[in-house]
Amino acid sequence: MESKNISVGFIGLGVMGRSMAGHLMAAGYRLNVFNRTKNKADELIQRGAVWCDTPAVVAARSDVVITMVGYPRDVEEIYLGEKGLVANARRDAVLIDMTTSSPELAQRIAIAAAARGRASLDAPVTGGDKGAREATLTILVGGDAAAFERVHPLFAVMGRNIVHCGTAGMGQHAKLANQIAIAGALQGVCEALAYAQRMGLDARQVQAAISGGAAGSWQLQNLGPKMLAGDFAPGFFAKHFIKDMELASRVAGEQNLNLPSLQLALERFRQLAAEGGAELGTQALFQLYHDAAKK
Amino acid sequence: MESKNISVGFIGLGVMGRSMAGHLMAAGYRLNVFNRTKNKADELIQRGAVWCDTPAVVAARSDVVITMVGYPRDVEEIYLGEKGLVANARRDAVLIDMTTSSPELAQRIAIAAAARGRASLDAPVTGGDKGAREATLTILVGGDAAAFERVHPLFAVMGRNIVHCGTAGMGQHAKLANQIAIAGALQGVCEALAYAQRMGLDARQVQAAISGGAAGSWQLQNLGPKMLAGDFAPGFFAKHFIKDMELASRVAGEQNLNLPSLQLALERFRQLAAEGGAELGTQALFQLYHDAAKK
Repeated sequence: MESKNISVGFIGLGVMGRSMAGHLMAAGYRLNVFNRTKNKADELIQRGAVWCDTPAVVAARSDVVITMVGYPRDVEEIYLGEKGLVANARRDAVLIDMTTSSPELAQRIAIAAAARGRASLDAPVTGGDKGAREATLTILVGGDAAAFERVHPLFAVMGRNIVHCGTAGMGQHAKLANQIAIAGALQGVCEALAYAQRMGLDARQVQAAISGGAAGSWQLQNLGPKMLAGDFAPGFFAKHFIKDMELASRVAGEQNLNLPSLQLALERFRQLAAEGGAELGTQALFQLYHDAAKK
Repeated sequence: MESKNISVGFIGLGVMGRSMAGHLMAAGYRLNVFNRTKNKADELIQRGAVWCDTPAVVAARSDVVITMVGYPRDVEEIYLGEKGLVANARRDAVLIDMTTSSPELAQRIAIAAAARGRASLDAPVTGGDKGAREATLTILVGGDAAAFERVHPLFAVMGRNIVHCGTAGMGQHAKLANQIAIAGALQGVCEALAYAQRMGLDARQVQAAISGGAAGSWQLQNLGPKMLAGDFAPGFFAKHFIKDMELASRVAGEQNLNLPSLQLALERFRQLAAEGGAELGTQALFQLYHDAAKK
C-alpha cells in the first residue's frame, strides 16, 4: 500500500479524526468520509473527500477503512451491525479501529472479519489532539501481522511511533496499560500541587523545580501548569478517560488483577463527573482537591 | 562564601552524603566529618577530611555544617540534643539539614538556632544517588534568604537546580510535594506493567512504547525496566519512602487535606515492608502486583 492509488474510508471526524484524515489526504490518499454530525466533514469535503451517507457506503468504496469514534457501543454498531463495515467491506479490505475500545470487542471484530475474508486491526493511539495535529501519535496495533505490514504506510502518515503489540485486542490492551499509568501519575500531580498550595508554597515554582527529577512526568509538565492556572478546557475529556478506566477496570477484574490506584482514580473521576466535570479536561481532577483545600 | 578558606562539617555519610561531601572536598572546602558508622568516612579521611568524634566537635570546628541522615528523630537529636549542633555551633555558623525530614522540626530548629544567633536551612534534595554522584541534584531550600545566599556556592557544588522555596520548613514541604507526585506515578507504573504482563503483552515493549507520551514519567522510564527485570536493589529504599510518605500524610492530615492516592501508596508500601521489602528499592512495590498476578 505504498501507492496512493487506493481509497481510504474515514469514519469519526472529531478533533482527533479530522487531523488524522487530513494528514492522509495531504499524503495523497483518496478519502471517503462519514460522521454522525455531517458539518464536521465540511473542510475535508472542500479539500476533495467524498461524503458517504452511511458506514456501509464507506465500506463499499474503500480499500482501507479507519474508524475513530467515541465509545465501544459505537464501534460495535459500525463494525458488526447489519449495515456495518464487516458485512459490507470489500474483499481484501483492511478495517482499522483507532478508537480506544474494548480488547474483547476487537477480538470479536477480528473473528467476524476473518470469517468473511476481511482483515481488521485495533490501533488505538496516544499523544492526544496535539499528537494527531502534528502527526506524532504513538499507534499501538493489534491483529494480523500481514495486514499490519500492508497498512503501515498509512500509520506512518499519522504517527511517529508505530508498534505491533500482538494479536487482535493487544493494541487495546497496550492502550489501556497506558491509561492506567496516566491514572496514577495524574493523581500524584493533583495531590502534590494541592499539598504545595495548601502549605503556602509557590506551587508553580514547585511544579517547575520538581519536573526535572524523579517526580517528573508528562502529566506534571503539561497539565500541572493548567491545573494551577484553573484552565480546565479539554485536551482529553474526563468522560472519555472514565470510559477508558472502566474498560481497564473491567478487564482487570475479569482476570482477578487488583489495581487499587486505577480503582481510586475511577471513583474520583466519577465524582468529578457527578459534580458536572465530565466535559472538562482530565486536569480538572485537581478541582476535587482544590475544593477540599478551601473548606 | 565564594572563598574556599572555610571549613564545612558533614554529618551523615551514607550513599548520598559520601558523594556530596566528596564534591565539596574536590571543590576545595576543608571538611570535618562525623558518621555513626565510622568506616564509611574512611575514604574521605584518606582524602584529607578530619574525623570528629561527635556532632558537637564538628560544630565547634566548622563555619557551615551539613547533615544528611536517616530519620527526623536523628535530625532532632543531632540539632537539638544537649551535645547537638545548635548548642555548639560557632557564632555566624549556618546549619543545613539536607535530610528529608519534618517541616515542623525544621521550623523548630530554625527558631532554636536564631535564638542563639545561628542560621539554619532545610535543604532536602531530589535526584537520588545518581544525582548525588553526578552533582545534578535539585536542592529545595527553606529558611532565611541571607543565609541561603551565603551558602549558595556550596549548594552549587552539589546540585544543579537550587531553589529557595520560602521560610524555614518550606524546603521540606516542597520535597514532600515531590514525594507525593512520585507516590502516584509509581503506583500507575506498577499497575500498568502488571496489567500488560497479565494480558500477555510484551511488557518491555509496552513500557518503551508508552514512555514517550502522556503516560511518560521518570518512574516509568527508569524503574519500569527494573521492575520487569526483577531488579529490586535500592536506589531509593522503600523504608525511606515510607518515612517520607508518613511525614506528608501527617502534615496533610493536620490540615484536613485529603490525599487518597498518597494514603493508598503508604498502605501498599507498609504491606511491602511487612512482607520483608523495607530494604528493597521503591520499584519493589511491583512485587505486590506481580505476586497477586500469579495467584
